[in-house]
Amino acid sequence: MEKRQLLYEGKAKRLYSTNEEGILWLEYKDSATAFNGEKKASIEGKGQLNNHITSLLFEKLKAEGIDSHFVQKLSDHEQLVRHVEIIPIEVVVRNVVAGTLAKRIGLEEGQPLKHTIVEWYYKDDELGDPLINEDHISILSLAKPEELTVLKEKALEINSILTRFFNEIGVDLIDFKLEFGRGKDGSILLADEISPDTCRLWDSKTKEKLDKDVFRRDLGSLTDAYQTVFTRLGGVSS
Amino acid sequence: MEKRQLLYEGKAKRLYSTNEEGILWLEYKDSATAFNGEKKASIEGKGQLNNHITSLLFEKLKAEGIDSHFVQKLSDHEQLVRHVEIIPIEVVVRNVVAGTLAKRIGLEEGQPLKHTIVEWYYKDDELGDPLINEDHISILSLAKPEELTVLKEKALEINSILTRFFNEIGVDLIDFKLEFGRGKDGSILLADEISPDTCRLWDSKTKEKLDKDVFRRDLGSLTDAYQTVFTRLGGVSS
Repeated sequence: MEKRQLLYEGKAKRLYSTNEEGILWLEYKDSATAFNGEKKASIEGKGQLNNHITSLLFEKLKAEGIDSHFVQKLSDHEQLVRHVEIIPIEVVVRNVVAGTLAKRIGLEEGQPLKHTIVEWYYKDDELGDPLINEDHISILSLAKPEELTVLKEKALEINSILTRFFNEIGVDLIDFKLEFGRGKDGSILLADEISPDTCRLWDSKTKEKLDKDVFRRDLGSLTDAYQTVFTRLGGVSS
Repeated sequence: MEKRQLLYEGKAKRLYSTNEEGILWLEYKDSATAFNGEKKASIEGKGQLNNHITSLLFEKLKAEGIDSHFVQKLSDHEQLVRHVEIIPIEVVVRNVVAGTLAKRIGLEEGQPLKHTIVEWYYKDDELGDPLINEDHISILSLAKPEELTVLKEKALEINSILTRFFNEIGVDLIDFKLEFGRGKDGSILLADEISPDTCRLWDSKTKEKLDKDVFRRDLGSLTDAYQTVFTRLGGVSS
């Protein structure tokens, strides 16, 4: 497999074409950003931890019947993924009150929710990724109603599976963000990444934060936190 | 009917008990507020225009089969209304892009929407009345799913009726906010007010604003704008 031209550079990843039709080359960067890019840093080792953790979680999800764009891990900071058309909706799943939810509805961070919440955010940096509803999605032609049904079902199923994985290693899955894409055949595939950049993960006993909030709120070493997650998931650094 | 003690004072109205069980005395104030109370003024005549316009619209809606808390107009700035338990959700209906929708989804103000949008906002001044979804409503126990179905149906029906009314008098109904309450028997009644304080109304030809945006954006005389709406609706000042 050959890496060809750069197709897209985001805040945390670079995407390249390859010599194989429908397969892309994904590179995890060491950059950390928060608050829609207002806070930035380069943190050595972050990209490879996210690559390792995402690869491991996408493999675990595949074993449970959840297909994703993930094909294989190539190196410490690289993956091959299937080419999908990203649906510009961030699907956020919440089990416990934290972050913007606490601010939006006035509940205290850490309070368990009596049922899981699913939220749609419009993936648009200029607009600050606003919360949107099904009518906004329809007006903007971001996804069809039947696609939203699939996104919600998949998101809740992924939540059940991940909650179990993380519980087994003494970690509470507080909330997380998913992105999905459309394959050539119109099928909907889980895409992007699942990592401490995109999940809130708290130690089940101490409630210590093991996710990007360590960076957002200056709580210590980000890579120590991410390494803890990776090690507990059974990962071995190469 | 006797006015008794003050039960509630909001930004634009005061609510009193009466000597009759289940009937309240509603007083429209002359205060204008915007941006969650950050901008304030007292504008003589505003309260009575809103009282007149709301009374007229609630009567028109009743004739079309939409029941509300409205009982009768008592004076220039007073109404009798049925006592309902207000559902703390602002139901916003939009036909044309304006205000916060333009900011949220990045479309230009004035652009007609290909279909009507319904939004739920959590009626909570401290939180700034945030946009919420059905999951948030459930977590906060603001309304039952079957009540939301009724709210949405009623909101869309009211939109059809009001759009027609306003079209007949050369006014475009851009968007509006509704509040609903639960009656003693659990029935859901339209409540609060429908006025240029709670609707965006534009002259169909000139697109001149005839609503609270005149105050929000300092576009001229608020009462002149509201008087135009009242006069076109066939209202005669007493």
